[in-house]
Amino acid sequence: MSDQLTNGKIRSLNCLADEGGRFRMLAIDQRGALQSMLAKVLGRDAKSIGAEELTTTKQVITRALAPFSTAVLTDPVYGYPSSIRDIPGGVGLLLAHEQTGYEKSGPDGRERRSCLLEEWSAERSRLAGANAAKLLIYYNPDASDETLEHQQRLVRTLGEECARLELAFLLEIVTYPIEEPSADTVQFARRKPELVVRSAAEFSKPEYKVDVLKLEFPADLKYAYECARGLFDRREREPAYDLKEVEDWCKRLDQACQVPWVILSAGVDIEEFLANVELAVKAGASGFLCGRAIWKGAVDLYPDTAAMESYLHTEGAYNFLRCNAAAACALPWHQHRRFSAQ
Amino acid sequence: MSDQLTNGKIRSLNCLADEGGRFRMLAIDQRGALQSMLAKVLGRDAKSIGAEELTTTKQVITRALAPFSTAVLTDPVYGYPSSIRDIPGGVGLLLAHEQTGYEKSGPDGRERRSCLLEEWSAERSRLAGANAAKLLIYYNPDASDETLEHQQRLVRTLGEECARLELAFLLEIVTYPIEEPSADTVQFARRKPELVVRSAAEFSKPEYKVDVLKLEFPADLKYAYECARGLFDRREREPAYDLKEVEDWCKRLDQACQVPWVILSAGVDIEEFLANVELAVKAGASGFLCGRAIWKGAVDLYPDTAAMESYLHTEGAYNFLRCNAAAACALPWHQHRRFSAQ
Repeated sequence: MSDQLTNGKIRSLNCLADEGGRFRMLAIDQRGALQSMLAKVLGRDAKSIGAEELTTTKQVITRALAPFSTAVLTDPVYGYPSSIRDIPGGVGLLLAHEQTGYEKSGPDGRERRSCLLEEWSAERSRLAGANAAKLLIYYNPDASDETLEHQQRLVRTLGEECARLELAFLLEIVTYPIEEPSADTVQFARRKPELVVRSAAEFSKPEYKVDVLKLEFPADLKYAYECARGLFDRREREPAYDLKEVEDWCKRLDQACQVPWVILSAGVDIEEFLANVELAVKAGASGFLCGRAIWKGAVDLYPDTAAMESYLHTEGAYNFLRCNAAAACALPWHQHRRFSAQ
Repeated sequence: MSDQLTNGKIRSLNCLADEGGRFRMLAIDQRGALQSMLAKVLGRDAKSIGAEELTTTKQVITRALAPFSTAVLTDPVYGYPSSIRDIPGGVGLLLAHEQTGYEKSGPDGRERRSCLLEEWSAERSRLAGANAAKLLIYYNPDASDETLEHQQRLVRTLGEECARLELAFLLEIVTYPIEEPSADTVQFARRKPELVVRSAAEFSKPEYKVDVLKLEFPADLKYAYECARGLFDRREREPAYDLKEVEDWCKRLDQACQVPWVILSAGVDIEEFLANVELAVKAGASGFLCGRAIWKGAVDLYPDTAAMESYLHTEGAYNFLRCNAAAACALPWHQHRRFSAQ
């Protein structure tokens, strides 16, 4: 390997991937997003959703789906204590290091700052037996310098800590609109590819010490010409690009990534996510780290845990198997050009 | 579970066992014993066997056999750096914490003191991503108080460290003769069962914070009436007990163990080890941690690594599969009475 990884980092990455070096990972580290989902189902306010509801949901989902995955991403506060016993020994563990949500910042309060979980650290993740620290940051490369520097500093801090501990560091980047009225607009759909690619390029720099990037799909397929007649959600939209252009953005994303990368699901439905995985893998992704696209149907059945389990053992399991099949030809992480001999 | 294990400990143990909770582990942490084996093969002095010979041997064996195991025990000095990349992610990792060999001590210099590896610690094992710290101590409960206290202090020290780090702690106990002329005598064969049982009882005490005991077979089958006509090595011996008595000692050993235990191979041949595993598992062992019995035939072929690989992929693999089959009905660690509700 031309780029040297320490033995601890290599071991960490091996524990997250399958024997071929592909990542097929389950995300169940949601907090705010899960509170909103449960609030909607229960007809209550999101703030009224407490620890018990979160831990029960996480436990039921983890127990049913962890066996399909090569690694599970959970949060240290609700997920780890309630479900670490349900993660098979052969399945790796990632822990989330960010506080849920973001702080509004920037001149108009439309920019986003992330915060690290208080009283948590890469060392605590190591002590808990985690194979990786995961950090989610919101990022728009056109935000103000103050916001960008804050986000970059956060990544650099955790990157240093992880390097010292030889713990794998997985960085999740979620872009957001600043000028556009919302993310589900043709304007933002048009901006998104470039935002995702520029962000991936930034955090590929060696100074951040990221081992794996967890990235959004670099387009919104709902706005792709071939899908814009309502293919995924029966809603017609103005097309922003065609599939050929989307494939080109996937390739540009792969070129921008100087480290192995995986695709995230960001709450889209399973059919759209499967298309994302297929296109990302074709461009050079090393797998996926998927949450809601696989299991969100189970949350609708809360608090009927028997019904949730039944859903997870049938539809949820089927969703996971389809994702696994879509990632079967993903690029093994150790074959990424970062490690190729030249 | 009546006895509380921390989440980190549970995760560690899950990573060492198969999904049923059974340990089928490979030991390749030998240093002194491996030097002696290589010296014999090469017709040289043991002290002349250097790091390169040790690391090559460990790497070849680990690469071929790790995929058959639920966890690999190696040493941090030679084994870890050379072979951590060859341990599949789904296979757990244990690291040895003792210096090889022992210091002579006691009134006649026939007693044995163990030493911890310098510049190593439970924290360094955690940083290296290990799922357990392993300590080998030589122990004879009839040794002098000074020797016993030294050995007990060593165990207590590492036990505390592991508890603080929530890292699984596996203690290996090897008995030895003090009054008897050598271990391969009918006198020592008669003493051995009691020595093994008393040692296991001592280190089952909660103050040592041991999670898994790695124990010798509590008898020498070569001295069992049914095997003493030369069944295992063509050498006839005076019988010390019959198989019924050996089974009783296995049961007494299980009763003495207040924590899950596994059986070690101590360099016996594969046929004898398989008989050991079967009898130990019948009595309540949770599996095995086996080294030379599985792979020693490969060392005879050093330095012809192609021949070693060929041996390991055929006879070595077959040996492992037979051990796995013998442990198929081992007691899942979480079903040990330590954790049963009463």
